[in-house]
Amino acid sequence: MNDAVRVLLDESRIPRNWYNIVADLPAPPPPPLRPDTLRPVGPDDLAPLFPMELIDQEITSERFVTIPPSVRDVYRLWRPTPLIRARRLERDLGTPAKIYYKYEGGSPSGSHKPNTAVPQAYYNAQQGVRRLTTETGAGQWGSALAFACAQYGIECEVWMVRASHDQKPHRGSLMRMYGATVHASPSSVTAAGSRILADHPDSPGSLGIAISEAVEAAAANPDFRYALGSVLNHVLLHQTVIGEEALEQMAAFGEVPDLIVGCAGGGSNFAGLTFPFLREKLAGRMNPVIRAVEPEACPSLTRGTYAYDFGDAAGLTPLLKMHTLGHDFVPDPIHAGGLRYHGMSPLLSHIYELGLFEASAMGQTECFEAGLRFARTEGIVPAPEPAHALAEVVAEALRCKETGEPKVLLTTLCGHGHFDLNAYDRYLSGQMEDFPLPQEQIDAALAGLPTL
Amino acid sequence: MNDAVRVLLDESRIPRNWYNIVADLPAPPPPPLRPDTLRPVGPDDLAPLFPMELIDQEITSERFVTIPPSVRDVYRLWRPTPLIRARRLERDLGTPAKIYYKYEGGSPSGSHKPNTAVPQAYYNAQQGVRRLTTETGAGQWGSALAFACAQYGIECEVWMVRASHDQKPHRGSLMRMYGATVHASPSSVTAAGSRILADHPDSPGSLGIAISEAVEAAAANPDFRYALGSVLNHVLLHQTVIGEEALEQMAAFGEVPDLIVGCAGGGSNFAGLTFPFLREKLAGRMNPVIRAVEPEACPSLTRGTYAYDFGDAAGLTPLLKMHTLGHDFVPDPIHAGGLRYHGMSPLLSHIYELGLFEASAMGQTECFEAGLRFARTEGIVPAPEPAHALAEVVAEALRCKETGEPKVLLTTLCGHGHFDLNAYDRYLSGQMEDFPLPQEQIDAALAGLPTL
Repeated sequence: MNDAVRVLLDESRIPRNWYNIVADLPAPPPPPLRPDTLRPVGPDDLAPLFPMELIDQEITSERFVTIPPSVRDVYRLWRPTPLIRARRLERDLGTPAKIYYKYEGGSPSGSHKPNTAVPQAYYNAQQGVRRLTTETGAGQWGSALAFACAQYGIECEVWMVRASHDQKPHRGSLMRMYGATVHASPSSVTAAGSRILADHPDSPGSLGIAISEAVEAAAANPDFRYALGSVLNHVLLHQTVIGEEALEQMAAFGEVPDLIVGCAGGGSNFAGLTFPFLREKLAGRMNPVIRAVEPEACPSLTRGTYAYDFGDAAGLTPLLKMHTLGHDFVPDPIHAGGLRYHGMSPLLSHIYELGLFEASAMGQTECFEAGLRFARTEGIVPAPEPAHALAEVVAEALRCKETGEPKVLLTTLCGHGHFDLNAYDRYLSGQMEDFPLPQEQIDAALAGLPTL
Repeated sequence: MNDAVRVLLDESRIPRNWYNIVADLPAPPPPPLRPDTLRPVGPDDLAPLFPMELIDQEITSERFVTIPPSVRDVYRLWRPTPLIRARRLERDLGTPAKIYYKYEGGSPSGSHKPNTAVPQAYYNAQQGVRRLTTETGAGQWGSALAFACAQYGIECEVWMVRASHDQKPHRGSLMRMYGATVHASPSSVTAAGSRILADHPDSPGSLGIAISEAVEAAAANPDFRYALGSVLNHVLLHQTVIGEEALEQMAAFGEVPDLIVGCAGGGSNFAGLTFPFLREKLAGRMNPVIRAVEPEACPSLTRGTYAYDFGDAAGLTPLLKMHTLGHDFVPDPIHAGGLRYHGMSPLLSHIYELGLFEASAMGQTECFEAGLRFARTEGIVPAPEPAHALAEVVAEALRCKETGEPKVLLTTLCGHGHFDLNAYDRYLSGQMEDFPLPQEQIDAALAGLPTL
């Protein structure tokens, strides 16, 4: 066994391919449907929103997709990322478990999001697209796309949910530094936003509204396209660089994971780490338990239903077969903005139905407790989203302390919390709330599911 | 030549020794003096403030000082740091110059400061010290010491200049996350602070006042000691891990630097990179030009005088022979808080007098312009302090574009700017000011120099 704290890889070890798990599944995932015809969505339906290369990646069943040299070249700014053994956290917990984390917070915008933002900007630039539009909640995705667009010299226009825009102004600053235009959403620059503002001048906004604005803006000009930071197959595909590197690094540590944990909102971070390990598991080369952690306030896997639903609140997207709380569901305002999504990636939902991973839900106070413990031992302040995974890892490590099992635990620290210190202040001053979710609230939202 | 973007080193390559340049200088630096007797300060004078190991390091003439295994073990959390070639910046500038930067912003608290905070906390803990007190301006030092104290289970109490405390609240949050107690200075918990508040209830504070408070608090309890984040010999010594690693990494790139640039406030970051290269230069193994960059608003090397002066505004410290603008000098409120110090490290001042490096001064608008250009090309948002060095690097690269010289340039990006986005907002909205410094202001402050 390797006694190191960090295993670093040379830049020649950046993966040459993204891994497409669809090729290895016993059954293909159900297709997205057009709401009007209820027939599967075709490439032509998606062409106004996405470049052809990304549409191809959305539907391909090839096992590996080559990463373009230009994308690998930008990846070199921060990839491969380190895999770190959290020895100080282990010691603090007094656990026989070994805790490993893949750290994605060293990227330019501070999370795993550039792994997909860069190829998305690249393929759009290749197709001559002049501007990408997008929505962002907490701002991780918006700043990643702004960075990526700066690399390829294309414009970036971001609608940021107003509540987050006002609460975390520095995420907007970061996007503007990278050259993006940022609107608080709802905004007066789109018809969708203007309609909301007319009725609710003080609307705090929502991801659903912001998506509507970004999609409207993309559709308004044939040189514009739209970009999404999670949920879709091609986004999950791009994130598999995390797991491919981690496989090599775990081998360098001389370890095989017993449990792999990831936080899951739309699912791209969780899929990015776990899909390559799931390939190894499906092939019988290892047998880790794989566990998604979602917030108690937005538990699409653990308390939602598996059904066709809209991806946005306004019902503008295709119908997606996924674990959902209903597109009318409005999660309570937890600090992990990246986990406040009513649905779950259709591909991940399908794999969950196949029984290939399990899920649990975590209250936010316990997550911030784990985040603080991690910062004091390992030094890095975790964003609230990966603090969910850390809380699960801490709980498992303490179970190992009871049983004496020296389990090997692996997770991704998908982003730092430098823009989330307001939230930690609330925790430290005892003002952090949990949001237990009444069943009636779920039932009410599920009643709004579209009938097919 | 190595075609890489980043050269990473395995953790076994963390230096085993700090390098003490005093051993290789043609003349020793002038000693600090007691203000009352004007005789050199002895170890006993310093014992109430510092542990004996650090006092020994302050005066040693041994060439190498062994890094304790426990300190190397904490260094493993982020060291060795990467050395990166800024190919995208080079391309953007259209320069034949090659630009390399050592990135120290990946440390837990986001700057080079933990390189010395960790050994300082370690030696104090070894000596049974229960609490470290310190002052901080922009907060980089305070958060580094808070992190280091958490590693060794000792208490940390920080006086943060009130203007910065209110302007950058998240730096205080970070210190509290690591378990430190943070006071806005002037505070009512010390006699020195209370006196100021009685006369000036709205005082914005200054480093001088904050030092007085921290020193008073350390002296009040035999189990407390004081820690300083720059200026002193032992601090510069600890930072040489930067240059030692960079030497090995430049060799891996197959390069020898023609010009080495660093920003200089108290001088620890500049010394950390340059001292090991200066050793090679003194031994005739390379001949780089070495250049310190200071802010136009606080130009101790380029417009100060070389004289004995106090290290703090209140005149409580020993007299230090250094380049100084006078301890009464109050720099204009530039955003690079880490460069707002009236003096310069006595050791660096001595080396400057020996003619071993040169210095230039830079206005802050030009620095933010360089910082923005760097963020858009290389992805990382630089703190305002290293933006000074980047502005000099950009200027040199553009001179190379004129002359066609393919010079090899090396600098340190000593910290990220995630807590400085307010300042970039000001720049982006055209509100950034420069502070040209009238000679009369310098003359007036220099008139307050102590007469020996």
